[in-house]
Amino acid sequence: MRPYKHKIQYYETDKMGITHHSNYIRFMEEARTDFLEQMGWPYDKLEESGVASPVISLECKYKSPSTYADELTIEVSVEQIKGARLCIAYKMTGRDGETVCEAKSEHCFVNSAGRPIRLQRDCPELYEALKALEGK
Amino acid sequence: MRPYKHKIQYYETDKMGITHHSNYIRFMEEARTDFLEQMGWPYDKLEESGVASPVISLECKYKSPSTYADELTIEVSVEQIKGARLCIAYKMTGRDGETVCEAKSEHCFVNSAGRPIRLQRDCPELYEALKALEGK
Amino acid sequence: MRPYKHKIQYYETDKMGITHHSNYIRFMEEARTDFLEQMGWPYDKLEESGVASPVISLECKYKSPSTYADELTIEVSVEQIKGARLCIAYKMTGRDGETVCEAKSEHCFVNSAGRPIRLQRDCPELYEALKALEGK
Amino acid sequence: MRPYKHKIQYYETDKMGITHHSNYIRFMEEARTDFLEQMGWPYDKLEESGVASPVISLECKYKSPSTYADELTIEVSVEQIKGARLCIAYKMTGRDGETVCEAKSEHCFVNSAGRPIRLQRDCPELYEALKALEGK
Repeated sequence: MRPYKHKIQYYETDKMGITHHSNYIRFMEEARTDFLEQMGWPYDKLEESGVASPVISLECKYKSPSTYADELTIEVSVEQIKGARLCIAYKMTGRDGETVCEAKSEHCFVNSAGRPIRLQRDCPELYEALKALEGK
Repeated sequence: MRPYKHKIQYYETDKMGITHHSNYIRFMEEARTDFLEQMGWPYDKLEESGVASPVISLECKYKSPSTYADELTIEVSVEQIKGARLCIAYKMTGRDGETVCEAKSEHCFVNSAGRPIRLQRDCPELYEALKALEGK
Repeated sequence: MRPYKHKIQYYETDKMGITHHSNYIRFMEEARTDFLEQMGWPYDKLEESGVASPVISLECKYKSPSTYADELTIEVSVEQIKGARLCIAYKMTGRDGETVCEAKSEHCFVNSAGRPIRLQRDCPELYEALKALEGK
Repeated sequence: MRPYKHKIQYYETDKMGITHHSNYIRFMEEARTDFLEQMGWPYDKLEESGVASPVISLECKYKSPSTYADELTIEVSVEQIKGARLCIAYKMTGRDGETVCEAKSEHCFVNSAGRPIRLQRDCPELYEALKALEGK
């Protein structure tokens, strides 16, 4: 899979002169979307299938700062996929290869009515696609 | 009507050390919501009536900067209300009474299906409430 | 200490009709600032003392959603303070007392040049104020 | 000049299911940065020259909505450049060529101390580069 690239925008910086820490949570979402798209699951296909995967928890470790005009390289991986849970890991590196941020997000699966579903039973095609990438 | 107060947050500042200009558009929305609430039209009442008023244009003049921990005082007024259009004006002042930002937003009215409506005909109670404040 | 209140704004919601998960990270910052202010350490005093406390990690568990016009009550507590580290905990509850979000942030301390400092030695007054609240 | 592309992110949508209007102000900044880079004035060169160009006013007309996963094409042009003022115009179009947003931003020029400068005198190279694109 091709890592996702995010170029830091001026509006993402703060008074300390660096990227505000809350924005990395948004970069995680951007990279996750791109990852699903590369897997063959762009948003419209997901929506048609009626599956959504809300974030139920996340953690983020800030290792070194980034700032305006920096380009982050974000590697996404499927840490674990079970019937009812998905855990995604993110590694963000800066221009010189330094680790900027390491993060994880945990997701459940819901149908279009917002009810919890089991992915393996209710959308096996997506489950298998994620399973094939687990731990890689 | 009581002016709205917004205290600038750290995440609203940028690398220049001041409030990023895009955030004032959000403060306009906050102040507008508060103004409608003070008029007796909190969000849930608006939603029940099925009326939404999307922004169709805006303009914003940045007069002097603000920064973290500053409290802005935002005065909202109904510049003009017609059957199909509403124009709201905003004046934001800082701690020392300096004008920070002057802005306007123009709105149309739509029903819950997103179709344009005429407020005077379709929600006369809200129309009259806005009309009574026009130009004040 | 008085809990912090945050009213969800329209611009903080997303397409799913709920508060976008990234915004809770910003509410944590708002509540933390307010907590420090209540402790007698408003931003200008912190800045004069030359101490900043960047976020080095955070975790966030999303328990139930919130949406536009909801008011969150955010309780902040000092989980642990050491010479070089501060851990803050947050509990956000909704109108009906339901837990919306539970979170933690970990901070280091740096001086105005961005160099790591030991709070106990370099700003004992703030250290003692935090220590007195630890675990409460 | 190559138009700028922005793909709408989930966190840029709101409860109405569309891109929140405040985000277009940020897309203007992204496109402007990219335009300057294509002109040969990336941010680090601008910073070395000591010139900044804060936004002093903007206007924005919302023509049709966009939503998650849409790709906007943003054309930027130099409407007018004078010694002390720069006016930039933006045209954002959606996938089917529909106009999504038309906007303008007005800028002044300041040096690294925040003092107003005259671009033609104080940074003639950038002035000439902008002048050559004026009205095109």
